[in-house]
Amino acid sequence: MSAASRVKRLLRDRAEVVVFEKNGWVSFALCGTPYYIGCRVRRLEELTYYPVEEFTRKRGIRINLYTEVVEIEPGERRLRYRAADGSTGVYEYDYLVLATGAKPRVPREWLVFENVFTLHSLEEADRIRSYIVSNNVRRVAVIGAGYTGLEVAENIRELGREVVVVHSREHVLNKVLDPDMASIVEEKAREKGVELVLGKRAEAIEGDEGRARRVVLRGGDVVEADAFIAAPGIEPNVSLASRAGLRIGETGAIWTDERMRTSDEHIYAVGDAVETRDVITGGRVWWPFAPAGNKQGYVAGTNIAGGDAVFPGVVRSSALGAFGLYIASTGLREEDAARYGFRPVAAYLRARTRSHYFGGGPEIHLKVVADEETGRLIGAQAVSEDSSAFWRANMVAALIWGKATVWDLFSLDQSYWPGANPVWDPLTVAARLLLRRFRGRKWVTLS
Amino acid sequence: MSAASRVKRLLRDRAEVVVFEKNGWVSFALCGTPYYIGCRVRRLEELTYYPVEEFTRKRGIRINLYTEVVEIEPGERRLRYRAADGSTGVYEYDYLVLATGAKPRVPREWLVFENVFTLHSLEEADRIRSYIVSNNVRRVAVIGAGYTGLEVAENIRELGREVVVVHSREHVLNKVLDPDMASIVEEKAREKGVELVLGKRAEAIEGDEGRARRVVLRGGDVVEADAFIAAPGIEPNVSLASRAGLRIGETGAIWTDERMRTSDEHIYAVGDAVETRDVITGGRVWWPFAPAGNKQGYVAGTNIAGGDAVFPGVVRSSALGAFGLYIASTGLREEDAARYGFRPVAAYLRARTRSHYFGGGPEIHLKVVADEETGRLIGAQAVSEDSSAFWRANMVAALIWGKATVWDLFSLDQSYWPGANPVWDPLTVAARLLLRRFRGRKWVTLS
Repeated sequence: MSAASRVKRLLRDRAEVVVFEKNGWVSFALCGTPYYIGCRVRRLEELTYYPVEEFTRKRGIRINLYTEVVEIEPGERRLRYRAADGSTGVYEYDYLVLATGAKPRVPREWLVFENVFTLHSLEEADRIRSYIVSNNVRRVAVIGAGYTGLEVAENIRELGREVVVVHSREHVLNKVLDPDMASIVEEKAREKGVELVLGKRAEAIEGDEGRARRVVLRGGDVVEADAFIAAPGIEPNVSLASRAGLRIGETGAIWTDERMRTSDEHIYAVGDAVETRDVITGGRVWWPFAPAGNKQGYVAGTNIAGGDAVFPGVVRSSALGAFGLYIASTGLREEDAARYGFRPVAAYLRARTRSHYFGGGPEIHLKVVADEETGRLIGAQAVSEDSSAFWRANMVAALIWGKATVWDLFSLDQSYWPGANPVWDPLTVAARLLLRRFRGRKWVTLS
Repeated sequence: MSAASRVKRLLRDRAEVVVFEKNGWVSFALCGTPYYIGCRVRRLEELTYYPVEEFTRKRGIRINLYTEVVEIEPGERRLRYRAADGSTGVYEYDYLVLATGAKPRVPREWLVFENVFTLHSLEEADRIRSYIVSNNVRRVAVIGAGYTGLEVAENIRELGREVVVVHSREHVLNKVLDPDMASIVEEKAREKGVELVLGKRAEAIEGDEGRARRVVLRGGDVVEADAFIAAPGIEPNVSLASRAGLRIGETGAIWTDERMRTSDEHIYAVGDAVETRDVITGGRVWWPFAPAGNKQGYVAGTNIAGGDAVFPGVVRSSALGAFGLYIASTGLREEDAARYGFRPVAAYLRARTRSHYFGGGPEIHLKVVADEETGRLIGAQAVSEDSSAFWRANMVAALIWGKATVWDLFSLDQSYWPGANPVWDPLTVAARLLLRRFRGRKWVTLS
């Protein structure tokens, strides 16, 4: 919708813009679905940014809901679609934008049970909430402790149900947090009554009479529950693109150039289906988060309309809130950095978020990772009950974006007000800790 | 204390470090004094970061309180001091660090009255609070609507007294906010019951029997009150440095190189008494805020101890809280930018701080300023009841630090969580608004 809106904004009546959507919603907040399950969001409509009429009437975009594109014929510049009533059609395009998103990576055989769910659409969120409420579900097993898994677990707990999270890795959120930081989240999750079963892969779901009863873990342990949410991870939805012969990148997502054009000059691709550039490593990365997707849509739309815009890539920023904590991460984890050719050094600290004479504020756990050879910042993770964890990680993201060094983190002219931070901000203290690893270094700064 | 501690940390017993302090406190938070007046901070001791013993016993620093350095003899590498008991002495140094700070710029004749105060030390904060409470002061006039003036006004209001703020300029906080942003603060101040008299210079204070009764404004109007706090501005305290023949910079503050060394190779200077480099303009700026001062102390201490550290300068970041608002600014004001050779373009927006399905959060007023010629970001101002105003301005500071463009602000991989920001963060929206002024531009980004 971001690409569609951008084209219409720039070309107005000179362009016909048509959207094909397999499901019943456009411009919706997938990130909000856990909160719908937990009833913090009451109605599904609240998870849309605009009513459909905003796009159709006001922006002049034609929208076909419940209409699935089943094939693309790049040579003919046309696509074939099938509507909900079974009718089919063909549409000829000058430019096509693929925004096919991602999908849960779940064994098909798990989904035969009526009480096993995935969560990757508003419809699924609705089914989960209905099921839990209507069937008086007492205990829910969540498979996977990534973003979706943890947010769903928290929300089901909020509904007063028992929750057990089963995760194949030793620590939660293992794609964005190092083990030391993940432990802090785990402690808080357990405090809130969430049971965590870590380091055990879910091998099978067993049940009878169409209802799942238990998850069987590698090694043979079982976890019983009344409902199951499978969130072991997602993968890019590239089937249409693959069949159309478009180049799939090394990450398994659709390849595009920085103008968001695929290997076919008339086809652009954006969002969770595409890979992008990792600004830190210079390599390719699949980073399926909403802000990047929206901006890629804006960039694709601009270019289709005759402009010239690039999407430079990501620094792997992401965040979530769970169990009363703000959890934010940017850049590479200390554990991953060596794999990309860096020599990681890290500073970890626990500090108060505000000045002591303003009560100090909640504690923040902050970790900053740098490269020992160049002094460049390459990552940060922050966890706190205070929202400044979110922002402090974002501050490091902004510095990494500019290829800043540890000395930049130290010197950066951050503002200070006792009600918002201590005069030696935790970020500055982290820089000081890191500087011990760089004694005698001649620093070059951005400034 | 930052310089002293750094030298001791690096050299330990190899260096004798002696501190001379005219007043009775070291390592104190001047920024906290308004909150002491408002009783949010109960005891003066709470405004120190460490008890004196931390420095003397633990860090091995000798501290002479109530001991004023009255003269420096650079040729002899010695200084003369006078202790509280009137005794005098001489101290010979290898290196001297001047941290003489700033002082209120107030006509001497105003201070003859017992009920006219300045606020630039813990002792003065104590006198103001005592006077207001002991004399049952009903109405206080604050002269000056800069940082100190507004924070004092808020705190006196919190004590339940009437407050009128008299300011010579048309808008409050005119050094850091453009008029459009200042107006938002003014509206809120008035809502909270603070009377503002703007655009009228205080010409005189009149009274009788040793007590001031009224401020006389240019044009002849008078403002009556029972107590008066004069906060029309501060200036660097350079008298010692001047008399010692050290170079005073174009801003009127002590000149130093980026290693914090003055024109005398054995004398360093740090904090509110010195000028520094403006990273945006490349020129010199006097930017007397605590974070810079502390870092300069660290840099001076490192260099004195034989290390090699630089303080690159500032991007004019600052912040305060007042009237329930977080107010933050970085870089140049739109109004000032032309004076430095920029062609400023600005985006202003009012937006919700969080996602709509998380209640939206309080509104933020955000302004971002860029240079039309280069596309470089050169400033930002943010005002909100939400602390994210503080952090969003800091995000722009981090980008300005790296010489980022508007396209960087748009593309930056900021993280998103609906409880912390909308998926199109106000910063990204501000970038989009600015981009309209740069149609057809080929962008170069940092990434």
